[in-house]
Amino acid sequence: MRREQVFWGWGEPGAGPSLPDHAVALLREELGISGAVVSSPVDTPVVPPSALPASLRERLASAAEVRDDAEARVLRTRGKSYLDLLAQRAGDFASAPDAVVAPADAAGVAAVLQACTEAGVAVVPFGGGTSVVGGLAGERGRFDALISLDLGRLDALVSVDPSSLLAVFEPGIRLPEADAALRTHGLALGHMPQSYEWATVGGCAATRSAGQSSTGHGRIDAQVAALECVTPVGALATLDAPGTAAGPSLRQLVLGSEGAFGVITRVALRVRPLRSTAFDAWTVGSFFEGAELLRRLEQDGIAPDIARLSDEEETRLSVALAGTGTVGRRLLDGRCLLVCGWEGAVGRASAARVLARGGARPLGGAPGRAWERSRFAGPHLRDDLMDRGVLVETLETATTWSNLERLYDAVRGALDGVHVGCHVSHLYPTGASLYFTLLGAQTADPAGQWKAIKDAATRAIVDASGTITHHHAIGRDHAPYLGDEIGELGLELLRAVKERCDPAGIMNPGKLL
Amino acid sequence: MRREQVFWGWGEPGAGPSLPDHAVALLREELGISGAVVSSPVDTPVVPPSALPASLRERLASAAEVRDDAEARVLRTRGKSYLDLLAQRAGDFASAPDAVVAPADAAGVAAVLQACTEAGVAVVPFGGGTSVVGGLAGERGRFDALISLDLGRLDALVSVDPSSLLAVFEPGIRLPEADAALRTHGLALGHMPQSYEWATVGGCAATRSAGQSSTGHGRIDAQVAALECVTPVGALATLDAPGTAAGPSLRQLVLGSEGAFGVITRVALRVRPLRSTAFDAWTVGSFFEGAELLRRLEQDGIAPDIARLSDEEETRLSVALAGTGTVGRRLLDGRCLLVCGWEGAVGRASAARVLARGGARPLGGAPGRAWERSRFAGPHLRDDLMDRGVLVETLETATTWSNLERLYDAVRGALDGVHVGCHVSHLYPTGASLYFTLLGAQTADPAGQWKAIKDAATRAIVDASGTITHHHAIGRDHAPYLGDEIGELGLELLRAVKERCDPAGIMNPGKLL
Repeated sequence: MRREQVFWGWGEPGAGPSLPDHAVALLREELGISGAVVSSPVDTPVVPPSALPASLRERLASAAEVRDDAEARVLRTRGKSYLDLLAQRAGDFASAPDAVVAPADAAGVAAVLQACTEAGVAVVPFGGGTSVVGGLAGERGRFDALISLDLGRLDALVSVDPSSLLAVFEPGIRLPEADAALRTHGLALGHMPQSYEWATVGGCAATRSAGQSSTGHGRIDAQVAALECVTPVGALATLDAPGTAAGPSLRQLVLGSEGAFGVITRVALRVRPLRSTAFDAWTVGSFFEGAELLRRLEQDGIAPDIARLSDEEETRLSVALAGTGTVGRRLLDGRCLLVCGWEGAVGRASAARVLARGGARPLGGAPGRAWERSRFAGPHLRDDLMDRGVLVETLETATTWSNLERLYDAVRGALDGVHVGCHVSHLYPTGASLYFTLLGAQTADPAGQWKAIKDAATRAIVDASGTITHHHAIGRDHAPYLGDEIGELGLELLRAVKERCDPAGIMNPGKLL
Repeated sequence: MRREQVFWGWGEPGAGPSLPDHAVALLREELGISGAVVSSPVDTPVVPPSALPASLRERLASAAEVRDDAEARVLRTRGKSYLDLLAQRAGDFASAPDAVVAPADAAGVAAVLQACTEAGVAVVPFGGGTSVVGGLAGERGRFDALISLDLGRLDALVSVDPSSLLAVFEPGIRLPEADAALRTHGLALGHMPQSYEWATVGGCAATRSAGQSSTGHGRIDAQVAALECVTPVGALATLDAPGTAAGPSLRQLVLGSEGAFGVITRVALRVRPLRSTAFDAWTVGSFFEGAELLRRLEQDGIAPDIARLSDEEETRLSVALAGTGTVGRRLLDGRCLLVCGWEGAVGRASAARVLARGGARPLGGAPGRAWERSRFAGPHLRDDLMDRGVLVETLETATTWSNLERLYDAVRGALDGVHVGCHVSHLYPTGASLYFTLLGAQTADPAGQWKAIKDAATRAIVDASGTITHHHAIGRDHAPYLGDEIGELGLELLRAVKERCDPAGIMNPGKLL
């Protein structure tokens, strides 16, 4: 039985972790908020009448399950970005899809795309619904009606090849269910984004997700060995050869296409043997002293599978939120927290020697295990924070090692009036990612406040040669900046591909391009 | 001073290794050839008059060096495939470029492409000239004239970022010169295809090359961090972020584009610290027993940087060619040779334990060092073999571990009447490559003989789900089969990109697509 998101916040109301009292007290102090609940999600969302033509509804119903009740439409109106949640709290469901259409297989997907192409109806592919960049917004483009193409029924583990460490999935399987299915084969996905509880395999591929252990096991774009994509003009399937020189990579053209070219209907993923994770934690003298140590580990081939290095500000707040235990006191002299997770990487002992020689001080396994317990808590807590009038957002980027400090300074310098913490979350031989968490007191116009902050931060990232997104994708929110990253010709080439796959332009209008 | 290829065989006549007498004797025995020299490259190649319009020549000369002497044109008539060499031996230079045009920088490349677009003249970008798949053939498509766009003057190391292990090169720098420039920074390319002596950085990127140590350091598509490509309609530049979720990968669209979209004018490569290579060699009970051991090493993260496992037949021939020394005798009981090279990979001791427990028997470092000494000898010996009427060709493919034996059997089964040896040359977590070497006695129609063999082998590869090329690219020779690998929609998408970049269709006609 597939779990359904039943809420217009994150997950299920009351089911996730909530903000403890001492955290609220801390936020009062740091952000100057009252701490009282000042807003909450609207109780009874109202959607406009469905604009789906009856003849199309009938045609779609012959190829898929079609729902146009309010609940189905409300739950697929958008994703889970800060702007999305603000709109849902305000009861704005004007852009709700005109129907939710759920085919059972790739042939059903093809039939739905064909019907919508002929009828001129926009299609938003819907996997886990966890986009934080407006990737699921109900933008109709030039069309009068829009359907949410729900992939929830394509949720099978199709096949497992244990000797090649490959598993083929349908796109709509959620990551926990994918892991559960693999577990019986002694295997694991090795892909754990913070949205793990709700995200789907197809959604991760469509958005170039990077899980928390991608330092060890690779981003989704390195994990996907092959995929199939159904477009309005036909299907594309790539071969699962582990390496090829057969021309430009079509796999890498579909990865990150965010439903703008077609619908990913099958994904062959490189998986890994099931293993437990061991944690080390350390303190380091400063954020960039720590980054330099991580660079050494990564370039020497002895990096942990999970590496998270918090800057001074994030460390300070983490310690304050965790209370005043022993670990906290040992961190309180302005040093930075480094958590390392080992899922079988071979360099653990060597890495410990490098870290210790580099001035890192061991903290044992507890901070890592504490991080592991709360690794998916962020989005749950965001609802509580928004209840209390807190602006809460995350920004992520990446650059080369030599440019890391410049990028960090540029982003922090662009962010006025909000509390900013940062951590390095993913390591590569040539560079690393930076993940910023922003907290502030909401103004009277929280959407306008967010837009100003987002624009300032993104412009700073572009100016400092960072990528506009390391793992949150483009969606609607980053689309205005994509040209700054890939240039006008880059946009033109993606448009050329889209026009060939989707001549009517029905696929996820207003996203990516 | 840039080295020039001065020969219509490989490299320089007489400069490389040549076939020893006992090898000729062995070939006499195995292939039934006489061993006498029966053919040799033509002495005085004749090229047709240049069809380049005088007005275009003048315009090109304002943007680049232009040569239309016979020597320049002969040396850029084609690459170094078996078919290419047959044609050159036969004195066929009818397709010689009408001029050799060498700009000094990216602006010069853009000016040349602009001029050729307006004049309707085909352009074949020329780097090291080492294509073995017809990638440099002088196909004019619908045009009356064709230029060879020689990138030899764009041969600078532009910048080095040692802390990020990144080096930016112009495309025309040859790999040995790139390594020499890096050496002063304590760095190395880590990319050594068999064509290393002549291949260029840009050519490797354009053809998705895989060096002999790619098991450790990654294929060129994993090494290229960013690139710039000048097309007839403008330039494309990708960012050097180590990871990004900013849409489909344009970097991966240019890699492998073989000059059909534009000209790569700059390449940022992930390099590695300069290190010496240590070698182990082993014998294993059978080819697939060895493959199974390599799978374990790779999936456990303890694979060597270089791994070459020869099958029974390749081992037998290698031993016979090496003479009857101690090593040879120890191999002669039908076991297979495995050579492992370690350039700093961390798992050497662990790997040795796994191999020994798996029944591998150590041979020490000598066979590996012998392999290293002759690692670039193959193409030189090919000229000697062709002098003696030997058909000599290599085929390479890749597949998942679970499909490796099926693919191997299919290719061998498709090859009648020639001697076939094979080795595993590149390891991946999900699979491996197979590299076949074919030797036979030429028939009276050696080109027809080759075409029949190539077609049978490629159809067998396609039917057995291997890639049509693991690292030799598509060029002209694999182009008829690309649709079998990527499908009609895949071809259509590549054509859409080409049409947007190159509306006049002047770029490398008849290759890739």
